[in-house]
Amino acid sequence: MTITAPLDPPARLLMGPGPISAYPRVLRAMSAQLVGQYDPFMTATMRETQELYRRVWATRNDATLLVDGTARAGIEAALMSLIRPGDRVLVPVFGRFGHLLAEIAERALAEVHVVEVPWGHVVPTSLIEEAVARVKPAVLALVQGDTSTTMNQPLDEIGAICERHGALFYTDATASLGGNAFLADAWGVDAATAGLQKCLGGPSGSAPLTLSERAVSVIRSRSRVEAGIREDADASAADFVRTNYFDLGMILDYWGPRRLNHHTEATSMLYAARECAAVLLEEGREAVIERHRLAGAAMLAGVRGLGLGVFGDVAHRMNNVVAVEVPDGVPADAVREALLDDFGVEIGTSFGPLHGRVWRIGTMGYNARKDAVLVTLAALEAVLRRFGVAVAAGGGVEAAGDVFRAAVREEVLA
Amino acid sequence: MTITAPLDPPARLLMGPGPISAYPRVLRAMSAQLVGQYDPFMTATMRETQELYRRVWATRNDATLLVDGTARAGIEAALMSLIRPGDRVLVPVFGRFGHLLAEIAERALAEVHVVEVPWGHVVPTSLIEEAVARVKPAVLALVQGDTSTTMNQPLDEIGAICERHGALFYTDATASLGGNAFLADAWGVDAATAGLQKCLGGPSGSAPLTLSERAVSVIRSRSRVEAGIREDADASAADFVRTNYFDLGMILDYWGPRRLNHHTEATSMLYAARECAAVLLEEGREAVIERHRLAGAAMLAGVRGLGLGVFGDVAHRMNNVVAVEVPDGVPADAVREALLDDFGVEIGTSFGPLHGRVWRIGTMGYNARKDAVLVTLAALEAVLRRFGVAVAAGGGVEAAGDVFRAAVREEVLA
Repeated sequence: MTITAPLDPPARLLMGPGPISAYPRVLRAMSAQLVGQYDPFMTATMRETQELYRRVWATRNDATLLVDGTARAGIEAALMSLIRPGDRVLVPVFGRFGHLLAEIAERALAEVHVVEVPWGHVVPTSLIEEAVARVKPAVLALVQGDTSTTMNQPLDEIGAICERHGALFYTDATASLGGNAFLADAWGVDAATAGLQKCLGGPSGSAPLTLSERAVSVIRSRSRVEAGIREDADASAADFVRTNYFDLGMILDYWGPRRLNHHTEATSMLYAARECAAVLLEEGREAVIERHRLAGAAMLAGVRGLGLGVFGDVAHRMNNVVAVEVPDGVPADAVREALLDDFGVEIGTSFGPLHGRVWRIGTMGYNARKDAVLVTLAALEAVLRRFGVAVAAGGGVEAAGDVFRAAVREEVLA
Repeated sequence: MTITAPLDPPARLLMGPGPISAYPRVLRAMSAQLVGQYDPFMTATMRETQELYRRVWATRNDATLLVDGTARAGIEAALMSLIRPGDRVLVPVFGRFGHLLAEIAERALAEVHVVEVPWGHVVPTSLIEEAVARVKPAVLALVQGDTSTTMNQPLDEIGAICERHGALFYTDATASLGGNAFLADAWGVDAATAGLQKCLGGPSGSAPLTLSERAVSVIRSRSRVEAGIREDADASAADFVRTNYFDLGMILDYWGPRRLNHHTEATSMLYAARECAAVLLEEGREAVIERHRLAGAAMLAGVRGLGLGVFGDVAHRMNNVVAVEVPDGVPADAVREALLDDFGVEIGTSFGPLHGRVWRIGTMGYNARKDAVLVTLAALEAVLRRFGVAVAAGGGVEAAGDVFRAAVREEVLA
C-alpha cells in the first residue's frame, strides 16, 4: 500500500486575473460536514443563499440561484436556455470572453452576429445600439468585465436599448461582480452570470445566476420534464432546451418551492457561495467595491512608479485587474516563474494577441489589500532588477503606498 | 449591517442513498487554500488525480479526468460528446436513472430505443444482447447501480456484446463505484462516469470520468476549438459537439499536455476528488468493497431482524443501499422526519412508483461502518415502535451485530 499524504498546497499569494486566494472564512465553511439534499438546513441554506445573491446582484429577481459548475457553466446555462436554434444573437466583442459568448451561442445553433473593437477598448454604446437596431437579435450577449484586456464595459444604458428593440439582455459578470458596480434591476439586465473565483473571493465551481421575469418566461416556454419523474400534467415543449444539466427551467424547479429533483446540489460549493456573499454583504457592497477601487488604483500607481507601461484604455479599466506592459527584451514567463518560485507571488499571463506582451495583475476579493499590493510590487521590483530592467528603487511601493495613505487622510478629513 | 453568522450545519448521520457524510480527511482538504490554475502544484495534482482514478476505475485509459459539476454533469458530458444527432442509442432501463440516460440522449437528438424491466430487477444480459443486435445502436447507455431500485446491473459481458455489434459501451457508476466491483478495462467499457457523493465519500460537485481510446477517437472527430484561443492549424468539424462546457475534446486538451485553457478548474472540488481516491486506495479497492458488502449485509439482516420486508431482487442488490418496505398504514415521511429530528439520522425516500412504499437506507463511503449501521437500526426501531409497529425488541441491532461478529470470527479463523 502506497501512502498518499494528505493534500498540502504551497503558500501562494494569488495576484493574477483569478482564481485568487479565497477568504479564510469561505475555506472554513467548505470543511463543514454535509447534510442531506432535502434536509431542512439544506433547503433553508439554499433559500438564504438566493436572498444573499439578490443583494449581491442588486435585484429583486425571484429566479436567483447557483449553477453547479464553473463560471463557464453559468454562461452555458444562460445561453443554452435562452437561445432557440436559429435565433439571432448579437455579441459585442472586446476581448477573449466575448469570443467565448459567440462560440457558445454558435454551439446553441444561433445565427451569431459580432461587432468587435480592438483589444484594450470598450464598445461604444452607440455602436451597440446601431447593431441592435440593424440585427434585431433575440438575445444581446455582452461581457461586463473581460479579464483578457481588463476592460469594464459600461452597461447602464444597454438594458433600455434592448427593451426598445425587443431583445433579451444577457451579461457575464464573472470577472467584475463584487469589485465593480453591478445593478441588475436598474440596468434592465434579463440574465447575468458569474463565478466565485474573482472578486467574490471563493473557489471556482459554483456559478451565481439571476434571471428577470422576461427571461424566465422564455425558458418556461421551452420546458421539458424528464421521464423518470414526469407526471401526466407536465407537457413538454417541442422546442425544448438541448441540454438537461443546463436546462434552467428544471434548475428553477429544483431551487423553487416544488423542489423537483434534478442534480444533487453540490453542498460544499453551496456553502462556499453562501459564505462569499455573506462576507461581501457584511463588509457592504459599496465598501467592497471601494476597497477594490483603492487597491486597483494603488497597483496601477505602483507599476507606473516602477516605470512600467499599462495596456489599454485605463479610464475604462476594471478596478480589480491591471494589464502591465512587459518591457522590451524581458522574458515575460520567466519573470512570472521567478515571482512564483522566489516570492510565492502569482501574476497572470495573457491570451492571444497579448501573450508575452502584458502581465495581468489582479487585486481582488481577499487580496484587494494593502499588504498584498505592496508585497507584489516589492517582489516585482526585485525580479525585474534581476532581469536587468532599470526600475526605480522603491518606486512601486512608494507610489502605491501614497495612494493608500491619501485614502486614509481623506477618511480622517471626512 | 446584518451579521450573517458563519455557516454551521447540524450534526447528521446520512444513511440515505446519497449524499452521505463525507470522510473527514476529504473535508479537511477542502479547506486548503487555493493555488493558481497553472501552478506547478495544480497541474501536478491534476495529473496525480488522473492516476489515482485510473486505479479506482481499474483502467489504463489515458483519458481519465474530472468534469466540473455533479454526477449528472459527467453523464451529460459523456452522452453529448459521444452521440451525434440522429444516432441510435439503446438504453436498458431498470429504474429512474435509466430514464435519465434516455432523457439526456433525447436532448442530444438521438433516436432513442429503450428496453425496460419492472423496477426491482436487473436487465437480463440476453435481453440486452438481443436488443443490441436488433437496434444496432451507436451507443449502448446503461446504468450500473440504480439507487431508485437498489439494483446492480451485471456489466461483465456487456463490453463484448457491444464490441461484436460495433456499439460504444457507456455506463454510469455514480451510485456503485467504490462500493461494488467495477473493472473498466476488463469489462470493455468505453466511457464511464461517477460522482463523489456516494461510495467515494465526498461532496457532490465533481464527476470522475474515463474514456477508452475508441471513445476518444469519436470525440476527437467532432472537435471544435473556441475562437478566442483558436490557432490556424485548428480546424473545426462540421458535426461539432453541441455544447462547449461539456465538449470532452476541449476538456481533454485542458487536462492533457497541451493544457489548453477551457474552464477554470474547480480547485477545491479537485482537492476533494483527489482525497476521495487517496482514502479509497490506501484502504485498498477490494477492502473498501468488502467493507461495503459487510455493512450492507448487516443492514439487510438488521431490517429483516426488525420484521421489515425488503424490496426487489436482493441477490442483485448493490452492496451500499437497501430498499425497505414501509409497513402497511405507517406514514413513510413522518417516520423519516422523526428519525432526523430525534436522532439526527437521515434515511431516504423513494421516487415514482416506489414513493411512500419503500425507504432507501444506504451504507456507503465513510458511513459503511458498524456504529453507523447499529445506530440507524436502534433509532429506526424506536421510531417504528412509536408509530405503533410491532417490531422485535433489539431484533435489528442483534441481527446486524451477528453479521459483524461473524465477519470478525472469519477473519480470526482465516
